[in-house]
Amino acid sequence: MKPSKQRKSTKKLGKPGTVKKSGLPAGSLIHVGKIKTEKTRIDVIEYNATSLIEKNQLGIKEASAYIDTSEPTWLRVTGLQDTQLIGDLGKAYGLHPLLIEDILNTGQRPKVELMKDYVFFTTKTLEISPDNGVISDQVSLILRKNLIISFHESDLEFLAPLYERINLEESRIRNNGVDYLFYALIDIIVDNYFNVIEVVAEMIDNVEDQIFSSPEENVLDTVQQIRKELLFLKKTIFPIREGLSTLIRTDIPLIDPQQVKYLGDVYDHVIHIYETIETYRELNTGLKEVYLSALSNKMNEVMKTLTIIATIFIPLTFVVGIYGMNFKNMPEISWKYGYLSVWIVMIAISLFMLFHFKKRKWI
Amino acid sequence: MKPSKQRKSTKKLGKPGTVKKSGLPAGSLIHVGKIKTEKTRIDVIEYNATSLIEKNQLGIKEASAYIDTSEPTWLRVTGLQDTQLIGDLGKAYGLHPLLIEDILNTGQRPKVELMKDYVFFTTKTLEISPDNGVISDQVSLILRKNLIISFHESDLEFLAPLYERINLEESRIRNNGVDYLFYALIDIIVDNYFNVIEVVAEMIDNVEDQIFSSPEENVLDTVQQIRKELLFLKKTIFPIREGLSTLIRTDIPLIDPQQVKYLGDVYDHVIHIYETIETYRELNTGLKEVYLSALSNKMNEVMKTLTIIATIFIPLTFVVGIYGMNFKNMPEISWKYGYLSVWIVMIAISLFMLFHFKKRKWI
Amino acid sequence: MKPSKQRKSTKKLGKPGTVKKSGLPAGSLIHVGKIKTEKTRIDVIEYNATSLIEKNQLGIKEASAYIDTSEPTWLRVTGLQDTQLIGDLGKAYGLHPLLIEDILNTGQRPKVELMKDYVFFTTKTLEISPDNGVISDQVSLILRKNLIISFHESDLEFLAPLYERINLEESRIRNNGVDYLFYALIDIIVDNYFNVIEVVAEMIDNVEDQIFSSPEENVLDTVQQIRKELLFLKKTIFPIREGLSTLIRTDIPLIDPQQVKYLGDVYDHVIHIYETIETYRELNTGLKEVYLSALSNKMNEVMKTLTIIATIFIPLTFVVGIYGMNFKNMPEISWKYGYLSVWIVMIAISLFMLFHFKKRKWI
Amino acid sequence: MKPSKQRKSTKKLGKPGTVKKSGLPAGSLIHVGKIKTEKTRIDVIEYNATSLIEKNQLGIKEASAYIDTSEPTWLRVTGLQDTQLIGDLGKAYGLHPLLIEDILNTGQRPKVELMKDYVFFTTKTLEISPDNGVISDQVSLILRKNLIISFHESDLEFLAPLYERINLEESRIRNNGVDYLFYALIDIIVDNYFNVIEVVAEMIDNVEDQIFSSPEENVLDTVQQIRKELLFLKKTIFPIREGLSTLIRTDIPLIDPQQVKYLGDVYDHVIHIYETIETYRELNTGLKEVYLSALSNKMNEVMKTLTIIATIFIPLTFVVGIYGMNFKNMPEISWKYGYLSVWIVMIAISLFMLFHFKKRKWI
Amino acid sequence: MKPSKQRKSTKKLGKPGTVKKSGLPAGSLIHVGKIKTEKTRIDVIEYNATSLIEKNQLGIKEASAYIDTSEPTWLRVTGLQDTQLIGDLGKAYGLHPLLIEDILNTGQRPKVELMKDYVFFTTKTLEISPDNGVISDQVSLILRKNLIISFHESDLEFLAPLYERINLEESRIRNNGVDYLFYALIDIIVDNYFNVIEVVAEMIDNVEDQIFSSPEENVLDTVQQIRKELLFLKKTIFPIREGLSTLIRTDIPLIDPQQVKYLGDVYDHVIHIYETIETYRELNTGLKEVYLSALSNKMNEVMKTLTIIATIFIPLTFVVGIYGMNFKNMPEISWKYGYLSVWIVMIAISLFMLFHFKKRKWI
Repeated sequence: MKPSKQRKSTKKLGKPGTVKKSGLPAGSLIHVGKIKTEKTRIDVIEYNATSLIEKNQLGIKEASAYIDTSEPTWLRVTGLQDTQLIGDLGKAYGLHPLLIEDILNTGQRPKVELMKDYVFFTTKTLEISPDNGVISDQVSLILRKNLIISFHESDLEFLAPLYERINLEESRIRNNGVDYLFYALIDIIVDNYFNVIEVVAEMIDNVEDQIFSSPEENVLDTVQQIRKELLFLKKTIFPIREGLSTLIRTDIPLIDPQQVKYLGDVYDHVIHIYETIETYRELNTGLKEVYLSALSNKMNEVMKTLTIIATIFIPLTFVVGIYGMNFKNMPEISWKYGYLSVWIVMIAISLFMLFHFKKRKWI
Repeated sequence: MKPSKQRKSTKKLGKPGTVKKSGLPAGSLIHVGKIKTEKTRIDVIEYNATSLIEKNQLGIKEASAYIDTSEPTWLRVTGLQDTQLIGDLGKAYGLHPLLIEDILNTGQRPKVELMKDYVFFTTKTLEISPDNGVISDQVSLILRKNLIISFHESDLEFLAPLYERINLEESRIRNNGVDYLFYALIDIIVDNYFNVIEVVAEMIDNVEDQIFSSPEENVLDTVQQIRKELLFLKKTIFPIREGLSTLIRTDIPLIDPQQVKYLGDVYDHVIHIYETIETYRELNTGLKEVYLSALSNKMNEVMKTLTIIATIFIPLTFVVGIYGMNFKNMPEISWKYGYLSVWIVMIAISLFMLFHFKKRKWI
Repeated sequence: MKPSKQRKSTKKLGKPGTVKKSGLPAGSLIHVGKIKTEKTRIDVIEYNATSLIEKNQLGIKEASAYIDTSEPTWLRVTGLQDTQLIGDLGKAYGLHPLLIEDILNTGQRPKVELMKDYVFFTTKTLEISPDNGVISDQVSLILRKNLIISFHESDLEFLAPLYERINLEESRIRNNGVDYLFYALIDIIVDNYFNVIEVVAEMIDNVEDQIFSSPEENVLDTVQQIRKELLFLKKTIFPIREGLSTLIRTDIPLIDPQQVKYLGDVYDHVIHIYETIETYRELNTGLKEVYLSALSNKMNEVMKTLTIIATIFIPLTFVVGIYGMNFKNMPEISWKYGYLSVWIVMIAISLFMLFHFKKRKWI
Repeated sequence: MKPSKQRKSTKKLGKPGTVKKSGLPAGSLIHVGKIKTEKTRIDVIEYNATSLIEKNQLGIKEASAYIDTSEPTWLRVTGLQDTQLIGDLGKAYGLHPLLIEDILNTGQRPKVELMKDYVFFTTKTLEISPDNGVISDQVSLILRKNLIISFHESDLEFLAPLYERINLEESRIRNNGVDYLFYALIDIIVDNYFNVIEVVAEMIDNVEDQIFSSPEENVLDTVQQIRKELLFLKKTIFPIREGLSTLIRTDIPLIDPQQVKYLGDVYDHVIHIYETIETYRELNTGLKEVYLSALSNKMNEVMKTLTIIATIFIPLTFVVGIYGMNFKNMPEISWKYGYLSVWIVMIAISLFMLFHFKKRKWI
Repeated sequence: MKPSKQRKSTKKLGKPGTVKKSGLPAGSLIHVGKIKTEKTRIDVIEYNATSLIEKNQLGIKEASAYIDTSEPTWLRVTGLQDTQLIGDLGKAYGLHPLLIEDILNTGQRPKVELMKDYVFFTTKTLEISPDNGVISDQVSLILRKNLIISFHESDLEFLAPLYERINLEESRIRNNGVDYLFYALIDIIVDNYFNVIEVVAEMIDNVEDQIFSSPEENVLDTVQQIRKELLFLKKTIFPIREGLSTLIRTDIPLIDPQQVKYLGDVYDHVIHIYETIETYRELNTGLKEVYLSALSNKMNEVMKTLTIIATIFIPLTFVVGIYGMNFKNMPEISWKYGYLSVWIVMIAISLFMLFHFKKRKWI
């Protein structure tokens, strides 16, 4: 990942998309965030160990029919711009207005909400874009009895392996309830964070190499960009950790204790990522110091060169200046070996200086 | 927001207005803070789903009549200079003397107090002034059965959308009790913090741009001002977080559990703001370092220029000095190609030096 | 407050007065600290809503007579040098030997001890001395049924308003028990901290002004003094916070729940002060950085001046050196416009250099 | 330990081997990590106070036969590449699929899992390699009734003393259950950390010596390497601390309360190591500062030399320049003692300068 | 305390003496640490309010006879090299093998262990050596019913006052049980820490004075030594704090609730010391910054001198160079006032420069 030319705006870092129009009542449905898909689309997969029914591009009426589904069902909403549709869907499934608002606000802080008959989990996905940048999307999950509703800000290509697995009859997803699918979705999202972490590690390594090979270039801009990137990751991961912790420690009837073990595994991964981010932040700070020291060393070298040349030649120039004076009465001028003597004196001075520098380890 | 010419006084930052005259008994009513409105004014709105009665500029007697109101009522006190009036109002509604003191002391730390039959919440509003500064006002809320009393240090223009909503029959405020209005007031105050955060983000971006475009100007003064601003925000937000946490975690009969969910949403926003402030503080520190490094680079460049010029010409000047000497016996002087040879020697020295600098990547 | 000429000794900061002679048994009564009053003095005020009896300079026997007093009584011991007297008084009122030791050791860390039938609270007062230094005294309070015994290291002039209030029949002190007086004493002590905080704020502002007006003076000595001052304040306030927290959270029969609210108010003030100190510490650190950067800027300016002069004149001096050579065969010497040409060349070089510097924004 | 030529890759530090192929279902058995042994090998030791039976290179069938062993048994699996074999063994002993995955993933964060009838503990070993680098291997332990299964990433030579002790009839291992062996294994692993810590201490001492003997060499690269090493150690030790804490504080029927005391001893060692790492991290930071200061001092010395030479000879060169001018009308030129006077003036200037420098302690 | 010539080895700081031979079974008795006394010696004092029996140099058999002593008894073991003897004594009094190991390992982290019928407390003593260094010894205490066994690494001279007090019939030790003696021992050890703290304070003051009087000397080495010293103290004090906290908060039948108050007093002292160490650490960091700034100031002054001399004389040298040229056609040469004019020009340039420098406050 090259540090992108356009610097990441601080504003974006701080409050990505929470610009709810102040003063609007809570629960006003406005999609906050860039529109990333053409149209909001609802797809559904109904599955069990032996059969799988997939329907695409459902209307709101069809989509609302799964409220008492007896088979594990995954209702997938892609694109958040059709707030009317999502609002209706939310009402159909009895979601709290605030949660619908959270689903639509793509600047929402990741969190878990445990409601009476459903669990709400909203989080961020992190992906490396083709040009090596980090793309962050929001995914919100509703876990109900036999039903998962997932809201995706855009098509998430990294979910492809999940689709493949759900199509295999022998896969664990097919042979478990929706709580396992819930876990599988979160797991695949968290696994993707590792890729981002790896790209940051590469950036740090590159900066380190650059400092040691050609320290004079200003790499502090890149170091500051990495710092921003890591701050962004930390800000994203931290509340996910909190959310998962809530899921694991609370006794939720919708999640089988067996699946809680799996969520615990995801939690461990998040902790691992979090600790790695902290480690990278320290390393990045260290890089800055190494760079500044390299700079100081360079400056030192420059100064020593100047000092050596100047302290050798300035006295010599003075010496030759003396005999450039036009005094009538300068006995040395007429001496036979005057010129030779001056050379000897000057060579002596130079050697003395060089010896002096040698002793002080300047050359 | 330009870093205002007059630097924010540290004293103001530290203890804005808490200069209670030491030794006065607790509960002595003195309005501490600048007077921001002409006169203390009491207005009242009595509302329910179908009707709304608004009365302005009440006297103390009228204002005291809502103690057992059966309809949701919002008693609004604007301006804190008439301490007598506010003291009387407080007594009429049975407020603890210390709380009245807190209402009047505009340097009060935000806090929540749960009393037997009312809840006290005092906080700070943050607004961007027309000249892009941050204005902080104090708002104190008393939540009683069917009654909210709000004490405003000055007219808060950002409350306008709330007035509009309360005038709409179908609005949620009108169809809920005062606990929803309580939430709505806090929500709109917290939403305004985002604007301030955004302005700070802009300042940081500006400083960053300035550093990369013309690093030689001293931006550290601005960086220090941003630091002060962020410290001030942090100091303001931190106790609000505490207060909201108390409101959410305690089981308060005056607040419907349904509304607690809404307050939880506000709490999430405050956490988000708090984390953003921490992020900005780190970025700001990073900026300082980038700036100092840019400065070092600049100095390095200056030194290299000096060194190149000096190390090339000082030896040459010595050479020409030699042949400026007036010794009688200087054989080279009379040589036919003496002058030419000197030029050749000097060009050779220059080229050697340039090659040397090239190798060290100084030019 | 001018940073006092004599620097505060680090040793004093660390352990003011705890030099208990190692190896002495616990409870050996030695007054540790400078003696600040001429003679230990015991005064008493017995009061209720309607009457007030004041007796001064009691002997030990009189002073011991209030053990079962039925009216609120304030026994005030000023000066700690008469350890015998204080020891006797302690025994008369059944104080634990360790507490008497704590009262006498003016380097004692502030703390609260809840005993079976009394509460012990020892703390530090902070006052601004006439020459703007900070004076720290120790005050220890014993709260018994209907009795407060206070031990003062010296006469505390800032208590004057309290004496006035206790003389007013309608004052709250007169109309409440000794628990209110207990609160009033702590409140007035904490209120005095604000003055000290304010003086530190002023010092910080002064340093800031000095840096921006004449950065070349070394202000880091002052910054270090402020740091010491703030460390001292932090060390003093922190345990007071702990102590007050204990008083508030524990259910103490001697303190009416109504008065606990008042103590909670004092606690809030202490928190406020503590946070302010933390804020100032950060600002002070920031000042140091601003100063160092100002210094760097100054150096940069010096270097640029040197570089500009040197890089313009060193080549010119070389040029004039050439034509100062005495070679027989130097055709240019005899040219009609040789001298003029040299001037033109030199002016061209100078202009080129100036243009170059302009481009790099050095001039 | 010489700072190895090839710098430790940041990526390796961050996420050593957790590159699970994203999207694979949980429990897919892939050995993640470099293959360190030729072939997965299973060995078993069955022992009690009087007898010891050792069998090597068991097949899966033999290895699965110890599920209800009545004598203390240690089943040792060396090498993790045969995932099929380990998967089968796991199934034979009823291990949770996630744990088998953890065993195979050598980038697993150390942790303890308490299952219904077994305890799972996975940790890292740290060893000094012959060329003084740090080698980290993963060891996972399963503690069942009368059975320990240990999974080693490679042959661990430092376990040799343990093998010796288990062969001695009178040893404590032989006279205790597998819970003591469990302790002994963890103890020997933790003891090895001390060796690594010691090597880091040596590196820090070396850097310190180098800074004070020849500060001009760039040691910051080494300081940054030590920082990485310490971050790596901290990241490794921290979760081990957590794991041991769980083992000690939970009441596990498989571990005799008597043996918990022993584990507490190991826990103390881990705390000790952790605190030492923190201490070293601070020292390492201090080293960096000492180095930068030494560099500054060096630069200062260089600058002083230049300044002394230049400020003495530049004025003198000017003086001799004056009398090199060719004006017709220069009276001094013809004076008898002109030349002598110039020398006297120049010597006076030099002495004045030297005196000046002496006064300022530059020479 | 002069910063001792030989720098404290980092290794020593990290792990003083824990070099247990890896792989040895737990409970192998090896005395780890330098041998500080000639021979392990056991002395005993049996005392009550009226009588005191002292026996010296007991054999193991005599020493083991106090297991059911009915009078308060202090069994004192000085010197840890005779591991056999100490092991036997431990067995005689039923000590856990791990604790005996802890007693012998002088690198043991201070800790408290509450066993069924005894309390184990191991800690470090800190003493100032005659040459002003810090000596750390280990003391382990076993508190049984009516019996204290203390293990001293060496003769502790600072215990002398304790011996004196135990010989006085009216002393509190004589009139209380062994729990008071237990307190008295810990108290005298902790009191000694204050002396060390004081010596560090002195070192910091000295460094500060040195920086302000002659900043050019490198004091950063000393600052780094103080940092090490403080890290060492912090590492020592921190676990003692933990241990005392356990003693106070746990309800131990062996310690009278009355004596717990005394231990609480010691605990307060330890907290005080801990906070003081933290304060000193910050001051020490501040010193470093003040020093670096003083260095920068010095450099600045050097640079200004160079710049002033160079910028005045370099142009002048150029001017005199011009008229040293040998052009045939130089009209000014022959002017009557040519020489005078040049002088006037040069003086004008100098004055202009000086004025310029004055304005910029360089001179």
